[in-house]
Amino acid sequence: MSQVLDLTSGLIGRRSVTPDDAGCQELIAARLRDAGFACEQLRYGQVDNLWATHGSGQPVLVLLGHTDVVPPGPAQDWTSDPFVPVIRDGVLYGRGAADMKGSVAAFVIAMEQFVAAHPGHAGTIALLLTSDEEGDAIDGVRRVADTFRARGQAIDWCITGEPSSTHRLGDLLRVGRRGTLSATLTVKGIQGHVAYPDKARNPIHQALPALAELTARHWDDGYETFPPTSLQVSNFNAGTGANNVIPGDAKVLFNLRYNPHWNAARLESEIGAVLDRHGLEYELHWHRGGEPFYTPEGRLRAMAREVLAEFTGTAPQESTAGGTSDARFIAPLGAQCIEIGPVNASIHKVDENVSVVDLEALPALYRRLIERLLLE
Amino acid sequence: MSQVLDLTSGLIGRRSVTPDDAGCQELIAARLRDAGFACEQLRYGQVDNLWATHGSGQPVLVLLGHTDVVPPGPAQDWTSDPFVPVIRDGVLYGRGAADMKGSVAAFVIAMEQFVAAHPGHAGTIALLLTSDEEGDAIDGVRRVADTFRARGQAIDWCITGEPSSTHRLGDLLRVGRRGTLSATLTVKGIQGHVAYPDKARNPIHQALPALAELTARHWDDGYETFPPTSLQVSNFNAGTGANNVIPGDAKVLFNLRYNPHWNAARLESEIGAVLDRHGLEYELHWHRGGEPFYTPEGRLRAMAREVLAEFTGTAPQESTAGGTSDARFIAPLGAQCIEIGPVNASIHKVDENVSVVDLEALPALYRRLIERLLLE
Ligand SMILES: [Zn+2]
Ligand SMILES: [Zn+2]
Repeated sequence: MSQVLDLTSGLIGRRSVTPDDAGCQELIAARLRDAGFACEQLRYGQVDNLWATHGSGQPVLVLLGHTDVVPPGPAQDWTSDPFVPVIRDGVLYGRGAADMKGSVAAFVIAMEQFVAAHPGHAGTIALLLTSDEEGDAIDGVRRVADTFRARGQAIDWCITGEPSSTHRLGDLLRVGRRGTLSATLTVKGIQGHVAYPDKARNPIHQALPALAELTARHWDDGYETFPPTSLQVSNFNAGTGANNVIPGDAKVLFNLRYNPHWNAARLESEIGAVLDRHGLEYELHWHRGGEPFYTPEGRLRAMAREVLAEFTGTAPQESTAGGTSDARFIAPLGAQCIEIGPVNASIHKVDENVSVVDLEALPALYRRLIERLLLE
Repeated sequence: MSQVLDLTSGLIGRRSVTPDDAGCQELIAARLRDAGFACEQLRYGQVDNLWATHGSGQPVLVLLGHTDVVPPGPAQDWTSDPFVPVIRDGVLYGRGAADMKGSVAAFVIAMEQFVAAHPGHAGTIALLLTSDEEGDAIDGVRRVADTFRARGQAIDWCITGEPSSTHRLGDLLRVGRRGTLSATLTVKGIQGHVAYPDKARNPIHQALPALAELTARHWDDGYETFPPTSLQVSNFNAGTGANNVIPGDAKVLFNLRYNPHWNAARLESEIGAVLDRHGLEYELHWHRGGEPFYTPEGRLRAMAREVLAEFTGTAPQESTAGGTSDARFIAPLGAQCIEIGPVNASIHKVDENVSVVDLEALPALYRRLIERLLLE
């Protein structure tokens, strides 16, 4: 069994449902200490974070990952136990196989090989792991980034191992992510009977024109390869169930996915102004899910493109689409960030899996990236 | 004990929770047969209806009532058993005391006295009772009206005994009611993830501008004493609860209360046209609660005004406000309709009641109306 398959299997066997690390980071820290890394455990609240470094000074290249996984759902829906790694027909099955215990194992193998071959390399090679990427992401990389900011920890480049590939390993290079901002809006009216609308104030009627304006708004035309900023009302709930009662309030959830034209503060301010202009009486609670990040053309992006092209024989698609990742907390430290990882077709689903061929290719891919960034 | 108090008490003691008549109509039919009335039982589905007539030909004056009551709710919330009539401090308590077993008993006493005093009166005096006014009103007066229409039964005037008075008996003469029309609208979208709005179609976003237009619409300026027609969205439900999922559909309930400028067919057609113009994919189910009715100045309204003014010493308020009543099914037969009944403060509540003084005055009030309409 290859080293990366062995380590991935060891990680899958640890039932690290977010935010429980379940000993994954201890297993990794023990190996990296043996390889000469300095390992620091940063535990915040219920969340374990590991910061392992080799070398010193700049440039600083961080490999970023998480050891937690999403819950498997009902185990009987899986072909085999989600926490018992099994290979069937050249495919490794288990919760976290693709998101992202395979990438984390590949990071570790790549770093071990790199420092063994180049013990006196320039700069710093580091691994940052969290165990709440799939959860609230409050005590994970967000808190670690605060610590780094306070310490003045420089980071030049950050490679996240999130499963970014779409059809085959290495076909996509993610160079940014949109920001995400969520709102819980309660529009307050006055309850009454539909026969006497003058004695009531219908909060649905109050909300309709304001929300119609917000959802019709053209926020921007996109940014570089980012799609246009989008606001989606995901939930609208009002009413007692009876068709003769005007309800007392209406509750609306909406979410924005936004590109670097915007930040959360400006969006909140403009949306609040629309609600005010429509004369609504409301309560509005914002949840900032993370600002967007974008890595323009530069050393990291150029090197990654070349390595992926060598690896697959074709230039990768360079994309800023998709959800969020912990890179959004590292980018504000001044780091260029990219994401390169396995095919994401099975993530968060039953029978999550990674091809054994892809998994065994991944350490060499990451090692090549490290070499080009720190040795050239 | 007076006759009306005795009969009202006998009716309250019969537990006629809608649509159960519980023998009320049989009790009344037996009395009216003794008084020379022809009594016809019209049972449709689970609903008993009674049609009792005296005399023949036109003019036809119908007294309209119901023997069913709304459920009492938890009996322990009442000061005394809701189905055991009790007088405390000059007030008769029991479910149906005001809505409308007191009026029904007063109708019966008034008719008995009238035909005893004027056995050869002109035209027809009739009593129509249903037992589902408080329920679906499908197999009650609606079906009876269909039967009358088929038979060519003429009705000139209809007096409903619904509790119309606001502060004291006879202070209000109801001369119309608004129509009511309810809709269940399902707007169909395509479910998806908020990060990929291009792959989804948000049914909330689709519904917003159409509903904003409908709720902002000025339907009319009112009609005679009717308030303006009003559309109220009573319920809006969409969303999975998660803020990252675009829901697959949105369910909206709305209700119109409309004056005689409109009828249900025209409202349905105009609203459907708005939804179509906005390009919605939708399902829309209408429930017609009853067309509006209005009794303009004429013999019935003028006589009722005079009788109430004699009775209270002041001209009554003439109103078209309030909910719906079974008169809406009689009016389309070409009948002038009014409503005169006891004070409605306690109806549909615990400790429903009617003042004994008011109850004992009611037969004379109805008898006077019958006399003026059929003898002059
Ligand atoms: Zn992940
Ligand atoms: Zn009633």
